[in-house]
Amino acid sequence: MSARAHHVDSEGELSPAEISSRRQSNSPSVHKVGVPPKQNMFNEFMYTFKETFFHDDPLRHFKDQSLSKKLMLGLQSVFPVFEWGRNYNLKMFRGDLISGLTIASLCIPQDIGYAKLANLDPKYGLYSSFVPPLVYACMGSSRDIAIGPVAVVSLLLGTLLRAEIDPNTNPDEYLRLAFTATFFAGVTQATLGFFRLGFLIDFLSHAAVVGFMGGAAITIALQQLKGFLGIKKFTKKTDIVAVLESVFSSAHHGWNWQTILISACFLTFLLVSKFIGKKNKKLFWIPAIAPLLSVVISTFFVYITRADKKGVQIVKHLDKGLNPSSLDLIYFSGDYLLKGFRIGVVSGMVALTEAVAIGRTFAAMKDYQIDGNKEMVALGAMNVIGSMTSCYVATGSFSRSAVNFMAGCQTAVSNIIMSIVVLLTLLFLTPLFKYTPNAILAAIIINAVIPLIDVNATVLIFKIDKLDFVACMGAFFGVIFASVEIGLLIAVGISFAKILLQVTRPRTAILGKIPRTSVYRNIHQYPEATRIPGVLTIRVDSAIYFSNSNYVRERIQRWLADEEEKVKAVSLPRIQFLIIEMSPVTDIDTSGIHALEDLYKSLQKRDIQLVLANPGPAVIDKLHVSHFADMLGHDKIFLTVAEAVDSCCPKLSDEV
Amino acid sequence: MSARAHHVDSEGELSPAEISSRRQSNSPSVHKVGVPPKQNMFNEFMYTFKETFFHDDPLRHFKDQSLSKKLMLGLQSVFPVFEWGRNYNLKMFRGDLISGLTIASLCIPQDIGYAKLANLDPKYGLYSSFVPPLVYACMGSSRDIAIGPVAVVSLLLGTLLRAEIDPNTNPDEYLRLAFTATFFAGVTQATLGFFRLGFLIDFLSHAAVVGFMGGAAITIALQQLKGFLGIKKFTKKTDIVAVLESVFSSAHHGWNWQTILISACFLTFLLVSKFIGKKNKKLFWIPAIAPLLSVVISTFFVYITRADKKGVQIVKHLDKGLNPSSLDLIYFSGDYLLKGFRIGVVSGMVALTEAVAIGRTFAAMKDYQIDGNKEMVALGAMNVIGSMTSCYVATGSFSRSAVNFMAGCQTAVSNIIMSIVVLLTLLFLTPLFKYTPNAILAAIIINAVIPLIDVNATVLIFKIDKLDFVACMGAFFGVIFASVEIGLLIAVGISFAKILLQVTRPRTAILGKIPRTSVYRNIHQYPEATRIPGVLTIRVDSAIYFSNSNYVRERIQRWLADEEEKVKAVSLPRIQFLIIEMSPVTDIDTSGIHALEDLYKSLQKRDIQLVLANPGPAVIDKLHVSHFADMLGHDKIFLTVAEAVDSCCPKLSDEV
Repeated sequence: MSARAHHVDSEGELSPAEISSRRQSNSPSVHKVGVPPKQNMFNEFMYTFKETFFHDDPLRHFKDQSLSKKLMLGLQSVFPVFEWGRNYNLKMFRGDLISGLTIASLCIPQDIGYAKLANLDPKYGLYSSFVPPLVYACMGSSRDIAIGPVAVVSLLLGTLLRAEIDPNTNPDEYLRLAFTATFFAGVTQATLGFFRLGFLIDFLSHAAVVGFMGGAAITIALQQLKGFLGIKKFTKKTDIVAVLESVFSSAHHGWNWQTILISACFLTFLLVSKFIGKKNKKLFWIPAIAPLLSVVISTFFVYITRADKKGVQIVKHLDKGLNPSSLDLIYFSGDYLLKGFRIGVVSGMVALTEAVAIGRTFAAMKDYQIDGNKEMVALGAMNVIGSMTSCYVATGSFSRSAVNFMAGCQTAVSNIIMSIVVLLTLLFLTPLFKYTPNAILAAIIINAVIPLIDVNATVLIFKIDKLDFVACMGAFFGVIFASVEIGLLIAVGISFAKILLQVTRPRTAILGKIPRTSVYRNIHQYPEATRIPGVLTIRVDSAIYFSNSNYVRERIQRWLADEEEKVKAVSLPRIQFLIIEMSPVTDIDTSGIHALEDLYKSLQKRDIQLVLANPGPAVIDKLHVSHFADMLGHDKIFLTVAEAVDSCCPKLSDEV
Repeated sequence: MSARAHHVDSEGELSPAEISSRRQSNSPSVHKVGVPPKQNMFNEFMYTFKETFFHDDPLRHFKDQSLSKKLMLGLQSVFPVFEWGRNYNLKMFRGDLISGLTIASLCIPQDIGYAKLANLDPKYGLYSSFVPPLVYACMGSSRDIAIGPVAVVSLLLGTLLRAEIDPNTNPDEYLRLAFTATFFAGVTQATLGFFRLGFLIDFLSHAAVVGFMGGAAITIALQQLKGFLGIKKFTKKTDIVAVLESVFSSAHHGWNWQTILISACFLTFLLVSKFIGKKNKKLFWIPAIAPLLSVVISTFFVYITRADKKGVQIVKHLDKGLNPSSLDLIYFSGDYLLKGFRIGVVSGMVALTEAVAIGRTFAAMKDYQIDGNKEMVALGAMNVIGSMTSCYVATGSFSRSAVNFMAGCQTAVSNIIMSIVVLLTLLFLTPLFKYTPNAILAAIIINAVIPLIDVNATVLIFKIDKLDFVACMGAFFGVIFASVEIGLLIAVGISFAKILLQVTRPRTAILGKIPRTSVYRNIHQYPEATRIPGVLTIRVDSAIYFSNSNYVRERIQRWLADEEEKVKAVSLPRIQFLIIEMSPVTDIDTSGIHALEDLYKSLQKRDIQLVLANPGPAVIDKLHVSHFADMLGHDKIFLTVAEAVDSCCPKLSDEV
């Protein structure tokens, strides 16, 4: 079972003198291909298990600690607040206070608008900015994320819920289903995190998310045309065709010029303030407080002009008081249990994708580590508790987190500050929102979702990977022209198709020798690389598994056929050796071994010798176990392509 | 945008003298990393498209031919009979005649039994061995496959059909649904082939197929206990628990000793003849004709003893005559259309898997090429025509194909011979089967499915890949304890899970320098490889895509953390350089670039320099397009790890 090349075996170890003479003459010596030490099945399994579920070694800190220390560490790991709380100081608090107040001013008008996207009363948006941030502050490990309702998840949840229950005819059942979905969204998130299945959200590719978010942003903006133009009768569909039809069919008598005046003025104000904030990073607070300022001014304006009597729609009524309990409203049985579960899983996963991406982005900026799975447990717990206290699905908001970061937040305390401001608002300020025009909320939401349309990222995706671009556009147009559900489905579908394509059609390359080295590289990349007559060297660029073993075999045979044709045309010596460079072949399974066997047999019939170069640890082990190494001959397996070539044609090695 | 290392750029090309001096002093020179020539988007797309759907270059022969020649080649490509038919001679015919007669003797009793597995009258089994082989002989490209009904597909079809319609109460509707399913099985197969989507069947891993086949074989054998023991009341379920319960509950009064005597005697005879055939390959014809011989002897025996009056169940009635048309029986509308479609897709795919595997196996043995997609079109056409002529799903039979091969078949003419024998049987011999005991059919089927339980393959799978073994066992136990459907679902599910695992958790390895070379290899595989102090070299063993980019980044950071701990413990110099060997990284997408950027930023904060070695053509291109190469510095990208190490620490390069 030894993998050492056969003629080294028969010679025994090289003497030092021999080695040095070989080195000086610059003729390469032959090295054996290492076989990794045998592991028993249990160790092997444990290793795979660990790499799959605990690759980030979350228990690292627990090693070699006393029991009491372990308990403390365990507590800190579930509630990171006990970890960072001990070093908390006044300077950090100043940063958190400023950023907390800033995101509070941003979140209050947004919350009211987002709740409408989910077809819920405005108060539920505010409720969701009170409890969930508090829970997250205790359990979450990101220092920069700003928690609360977000536009895309609100729209998704609203669309999914409306498909089951009409919010206008059955508002109570609709609300109950919303809490049920929120509960299961939380359960899904916590379960994924607890069982360390967080990697599942990685299956939604970056490109698909960019497209999905862009499409959702446009859909949300289109929905705001109702408030923006003051239209009373509006379609319930979300696709662009239905919405524009609805908008233009009501152009003659359905639009309200007072409303349009308000929304256009304030949208301009918001966009200008955003532009100022972008130009000068220090003025980040201008776009941050602009929305609240707009609300205050426009509310006051409507109040004194009584514009609401002239067709300007207003919020009208916003309940005063804190979150009531909603535990008894969740459907724990019956038909709606299953529906709530399904909606919860989908919206919970999308919410996770957003929150984890935000967490990672800011963690990389400040260079601290985030445990994605622990983060999911925190988000899940927050939504489960939220669902029992009249909140709907909350997650990390991109725009507010960015403001939080720029305002100098230090810890999750900024979320607590925000939460307290929302608490005070709920207790004392809600009546003031009575005269707030819906138009201003529409303008704020349009302004908030514009950054979700990430043109730069799309251009970059187009440049880097055309298939990614297709996924991006598929998700984008799916959301715009069909629905947010269909768009999501397309995004997931194309992401999976890409994975499958990748494992079915790995790349292969012909190698040549780079002049003045013993290095063999892809001749497509290095046109100066030279080929050795009589030898064809092919590199297979992937593990050989059942999903690609047939392709790999057939592709190698096609390279060979192409080559033989070419050789015949210019009457070069015929191909006698086929060297497969196995460096990128990190693993092989039974189907892969069968493919190699078939290739070997077919080559043997045509008097071509198969030679392998540099099989990795997993591969060399399996070549031996399956006895393919015996079939091929141990002296046909080499450490490098250079050694393989030298051994194949000693008479040629000097010529080149 | 040039990728050449920066200091080579500034020096210009090395002079020949310099090269030679560098070579002699054995100090490696620095080589530039090649950037492949830019391709326009259309070419790039066409290349991907070709590799995905036309990787075997099926139109190769059409190049540079005249129009009439092209037409002829096109005709030959759809009907390969025109190709091999022209060189057909008497010697080939002798081989085909013998093998055709042999497989005919094998298929007639099997057909009668297999039709029962599909809950159909025995005659439909014979019909399916008449038309489909004729169609295949004209269109198929395999020379060794034997076409007809097979055990596993019959069982699967029977199970799926019975779930929709009870064959005992509604035999006519059942039959119509069977033809509908057959029609759509053929359409599915032909469509997959025509659109060159044949690679889809590769997603069912070899291991899963082995487990599924083994489980199906046992299920089929268990079903035969009804005929074998002469039980009249038998469960309709197929799981082992229900069947054994049914068998033992009827032990007291339900078994028939005359039946058991017949079946036991003949099963022994069949097994002994199989054993003889295995021991001496030249006697392959003994196991081949044993089944027909058993049928003849047992039928004669029952006829003279009138054992049917003593409880031995017999075939009773077998219609005389050829396949009637069944075109008007296919459901082209209504509720059953969709059900037939679904069943057809599933059984068509399973039938394809079997036929394509057989075709490939024997093609590899005789070293000829099979175009999997063309083969699917042939199989599909054969089943579509079959569904219109009272046949149910036919495909390639493993056992009969092996006999065909051993009997010396040369072309698909052996299928025509078999077909003619079946034709004669249908016309003249069916009344003779009246007294054939069901027991003998049970014995023949049990004998036929035993080789499907491939213990050797299972052991090999266990040795080579533990996860494959789990897939194999999952499918096996799924079929046995639940149903053939559930088993298939488990097989497909685990196969996909394996693909996903593979793309989410790629391997990474620490590299060391193999003594007396400039080669860097996995220190796990080559324990003698030495590490360079201050430098950590990590190889990433996979393309970096959205599905693994986060894992790869976190894993690299963990390697670094482990290493820094170790270094601190023995007070070695701190890690200053992190070299990532990119040879196996064949591609990278936007998420991968982001992961590298995050890694770079995080390393920069800790004053560790990121260095890349040997990025491939796709990767170097994308590193440039995304400007990551600019961010990193062009002089931080090297051709080999050795050069990267040398440039990192010139003061260390002499020490090691």
